[in-house]
Amino acid sequence: KDAKAPPSAKELFRAAMTNVLERRLFFIPSFKIYGSVAGFYDFGPPGCAIKQNVTQLWRQHFILEESMLEVECPAVTPEAVLKASGHVDRFTDFMVTDMKTGECHRADHLLKAALEALLEDPKAGLTPEKKTEAEDVLARIDELDSIGLGTALTRYGVKTPDTKNDISAPFPFNLMFRTSIGPKGDAVGYLRPETAQGIFVNFKDLLYYNGGKLPFAAAQIGQSYRNEISPRAGLLRVREFTQAEIEHFVNPDDKDHPKFESIQQLKPLLFSQELQTNETKQPEAMSLGDAVTNKIIANQTLAYFIGRTYLFLVGIGISPKRLRFRQHLPNEMAHYAADCWDAEVECSYGWVECVGLADRSAYDLRAHSDASNQALEAYEKFPEPRFAQVLVAKPEKAKIGKLYKKEGKPLLEKLDNLSQEDAACMKKSFGEGKPATVSAGGRDFEVTPDLLDIQEKEEKLNGRKFTPSVIEPSFGIGRIIYCMFEHAYYTRQNNEDKSVFRFKAAVAPLKAAVFPLVQQPEMNSTARSISAALTRAGLANTVDTTGTTIGKRYARTDELGVPYDITVDRASIDGDGSVTLRERDSTSQVRVHKEKVAAVVQQLVSGELTWQNVLDTFPAQQPAAEEEA
Amino acid sequence: KDAKAPPSAKELFRAAMTNVLERRLFFIPSFKIYGSVAGFYDFGPPGCAIKQNVTQLWRQHFILEESMLEVECPAVTPEAVLKASGHVDRFTDFMVTDMKTGECHRADHLLKAALEALLEDPKAGLTPEKKTEAEDVLARIDELDSIGLGTALTRYGVKTPDTKNDISAPFPFNLMFRTSIGPKGDAVGYLRPETAQGIFVNFKDLLYYNGGKLPFAAAQIGQSYRNEISPRAGLLRVREFTQAEIEHFVNPDDKDHPKFESIQQLKPLLFSQELQTNETKQPEAMSLGDAVTNKIIANQTLAYFIGRTYLFLVGIGISPKRLRFRQHLPNEMAHYAADCWDAEVECSYGWVECVGLADRSAYDLRAHSDASNQALEAYEKFPEPRFAQVLVAKPEKAKIGKLYKKEGKPLLEKLDNLSQEDAACMKKSFGEGKPATVSAGGRDFEVTPDLLDIQEKEEKLNGRKFTPSVIEPSFGIGRIIYCMFEHAYYTRQNNEDKSVFRFKAAVAPLKAAVFPLVQQPEMNSTARSISAALTRAGLANTVDTTGTTIGKRYARTDELGVPYDITVDRASIDGDGSVTLRERDSTSQVRVHKEKVAAVVQQLVSGELTWQNVLDTFPAQQPAAEEEA
Repeated sequence: KDAKAPPSAKELFRAAMTNVLERRLFFIPSFKIYGSVAGFYDFGPPGCAIKQNVTQLWRQHFILEESMLEVECPAVTPEAVLKASGHVDRFTDFMVTDMKTGECHRADHLLKAALEALLEDPKAGLTPEKKTEAEDVLARIDELDSIGLGTALTRYGVKTPDTKNDISAPFPFNLMFRTSIGPKGDAVGYLRPETAQGIFVNFKDLLYYNGGKLPFAAAQIGQSYRNEISPRAGLLRVREFTQAEIEHFVNPDDKDHPKFESIQQLKPLLFSQELQTNETKQPEAMSLGDAVTNKIIANQTLAYFIGRTYLFLVGIGISPKRLRFRQHLPNEMAHYAADCWDAEVECSYGWVECVGLADRSAYDLRAHSDASNQALEAYEKFPEPRFAQVLVAKPEKAKIGKLYKKEGKPLLEKLDNLSQEDAACMKKSFGEGKPATVSAGGRDFEVTPDLLDIQEKEEKLNGRKFTPSVIEPSFGIGRIIYCMFEHAYYTRQNNEDKSVFRFKAAVAPLKAAVFPLVQQPEMNSTARSISAALTRAGLANTVDTTGTTIGKRYARTDELGVPYDITVDRASIDGDGSVTLRERDSTSQVRVHKEKVAAVVQQLVSGELTWQNVLDTFPAQQPAAEEEA
Repeated sequence: KDAKAPPSAKELFRAAMTNVLERRLFFIPSFKIYGSVAGFYDFGPPGCAIKQNVTQLWRQHFILEESMLEVECPAVTPEAVLKASGHVDRFTDFMVTDMKTGECHRADHLLKAALEALLEDPKAGLTPEKKTEAEDVLARIDELDSIGLGTALTRYGVKTPDTKNDISAPFPFNLMFRTSIGPKGDAVGYLRPETAQGIFVNFKDLLYYNGGKLPFAAAQIGQSYRNEISPRAGLLRVREFTQAEIEHFVNPDDKDHPKFESIQQLKPLLFSQELQTNETKQPEAMSLGDAVTNKIIANQTLAYFIGRTYLFLVGIGISPKRLRFRQHLPNEMAHYAADCWDAEVECSYGWVECVGLADRSAYDLRAHSDASNQALEAYEKFPEPRFAQVLVAKPEKAKIGKLYKKEGKPLLEKLDNLSQEDAACMKKSFGEGKPATVSAGGRDFEVTPDLLDIQEKEEKLNGRKFTPSVIEPSFGIGRIIYCMFEHAYYTRQNNEDKSVFRFKAAVAPLKAAVFPLVQQPEMNSTARSISAALTRAGLANTVDTTGTTIGKRYARTDELGVPYDITVDRASIDGDGSVTLRERDSTSQVRVHKEKVAAVVQQLVSGELTWQNVLDTFPAQQPAAEEEA
């Protein structure tokens, strides 16, 4: 982007909001007195309270209401786990370095910025062909490998943005933080790049805990770590962040969901593969029931989680009009994935992925089963016994022992517990006169027909073992909170300097603030009693006895998104014992007795009462002109 | 310890309890399918729920009730922060290696085990002098440095326990997990060994947030990491754990606490320095008011937190008789600490430190102020202006500039903002004809009188700047939970195979379980309605429709510490619509109407009702003999 271009409306909005967020300590760049480190943020007091509220709401909405099995696993993870999951080999971004300064940059980010600048520059004088070509590269940037990126960077003559120096060819950089476990320094560990793996490695125990029955879901809320090459975009791309992930394990032959009916009428904006590639390129509101019937969403369970995610996000304050579920295009989707959708939220940075919802089939359990040599399977009992052609595989133990000695042990275990699928695959290889390759105990074995006899037999089957499919909704809590900030922020119509966050009461860092109108012992003590009653009711609150003008105190709490302000005045002490109760967004006020006001606020926060109910019940109080000026 | 000795009663108790904890997935050795890694545990579903409950209760008890400022900082921390805090240089344990295998051991652990074995061995034939000597070394093990440890290990001929090989001399091993931040690999980072530093580096912002006023407290709950040399002792010594830390910042001249009165009558067991060194060596129950009056506890604020800690621990189920507050002996205490007490809980491993409560004076803020070159001070306005002799320090800018060039800049900044204390100290040095050493910008400078003029003047002071003292209560959540497990575990008097956890309802992983007596659609659906009503009331619960005998289902929930079981039987469907409600510890039952039972359980969990109230109100149900057999 041209540095001299005036900031857009979106950028001005973001700058104004970020100013409030930083000034009121919603978040703080970490280690500030030491000059900070890119990609790390602290949550300050109001941010921390909001994060607590959001994760507790998530826990209630998903874990408690769906009886999920919650686990908490360490962030430090030994290499074997992340080797099996593919992260050690493939969790990389392409990096280029400045040939003079050695500074590191993400190759795709540089290319993207260069192409955007080129396309926006009226002086570039691009021919229509060149323009189409540049647009095409820009659209496909995520598909490029290191060679493709390198070619494009050279073709467009991309330099380092700040220094204008030449850049290196792109090379992969693994994004995991590496450490070593134990005193000897030889046990490599990483900080987990996602919380999901902790669930997969516990699958066996969790299935047992669930009485051996499918479907069931496990969930984890915790920190994940990605050593981003050059993090920017504030709270959206950070190196340490909170994830909330669900792994819903299900029989691959039956992905219906018992509670599907409860969400099938919901109509979120869906941005299917088809809608993304047709002419209009616009998402459409569509009922989830129709989306499954018309095979736009692959199955009920995935659609159920899309529906529950929609309810959660809208429930905490994401605007439904700025929330869409975008299906991955075929080229974005991993080869094993059955279907993937991202919940994307519109904010000043554009549409931001906040939740990923993927049917990952049996990929993860298979990968860990292969690497750990442990069966990670479920058992399904058939209602009636079935007769079927099955493959019976008999390993030649003596020959294998002779050939591989001690190392053959994991191979034997594997061959003794061969799945039908694997047996079929090996039989096919043998039929083609080729040996089969079997991974066991961390190495590959070549297995020839003389080592393994595979016969087809008819068998009476009372049930079957199978590897469950997993449907994974994965939430980035920090991104969701950031987008929620943007959707909640506004300035008063009559006064642009007055910032407000219209947080839902359940999310707001404080539910109420109590103000003695002037600094006076009786008013202070009444304020403290009201505060204590609010605390007893479990409502976070504050008392502001500074004696600043009440208008300034209202403005301060508006900036924190506090939904209700209570002011103790003369009448509270000498008159009818009432206090004023003010609602943040309407700024309207009523008078409520001081003994009752905590209960009224509690009912407002819990949703038992609306503000309209309160306006209808209690006498209105006209705010003094200067209070809301 | 002699491997052949029969297990003690404590060890049997621990083995029985651990069996239940692992079987019911309260916790799981992490990465089990890959063979686990010492010092890492997962919390499984019930453990996770308990941990959630304990941290939420902590947050309510400390953060909300005291209006503390909660923050959340990253675990990945740049080196500068932990250099300043002293962890890079001094956060070490002494290690020895097996001279043949290279295996690593903690030097103090080997020495302790060897001395204990020696003292217990009847065949060792120790003379009284040798015995006293060995006992003396054992008692002072924590005071030994590497040379002292090495001498003792040699003197007692200590070998590696398993291999009996020789061991190396002890050397310090830093317990922090090391990593690097960013793609270049040159920015060293560590996983934080405690959460406290995140609060100290934010002190300036937090003080501002609090309107510049002292005292205030900030708190953080989060993961900390210690790369233990050879972790044993199960959940007590782990490499990744949850801490909850409070930093209460206070004027060093006024450590009274406004709410001290609310706890001064409490009488926890106090184990003061005096009681530890007198003849009986027993702690005594003493009111906190007396302890402060008699200067046993240094100040009201420290005593206030001891009281609040006592209430918290007892509130979640720690037995008050097995909880003591032990004062650090002079040789345990850091030179800067004004007073330190540990909350120790007795369990099968002995007395375990679960909470540290320390008055750390101004140490931490000073260390970060020196290293970051930022003033971390508060300002106190005097009620009346004071006239005082003050030291005015005038740096000779030109000379300093000439001498140190650019590097002199941080020195100048420092000298311009010299505290009275530092100025006095430097004046003293100059008076003795010695130069003073000043740390600034990460290096030491020698300052001579010609570079800095220090004059005493009378000045009118409206207030003063000072570095606040910090009082730090630091909780190890995992250790507290483990001790709580031990205090809650018992087996039924009539049946040692029946394990029960007598968790407090607020801590219990599930508040209720609902059982249809037999597998029958109407009973199942009634059970589900009751479960839904419990969920709406925010009570975690489960439905067990397995149709196993009701006695077995009771036993299963007893093992999870579920306080209330609800059974739907014939009468619930065809009779008076009542269900049975059973209390875990008494195993007594009443009949309550199915529409009311969720509300009754809610009142029991919140404490509005006791079980005795329920027994007095509702008709008793005699359990069938086999149910509690």
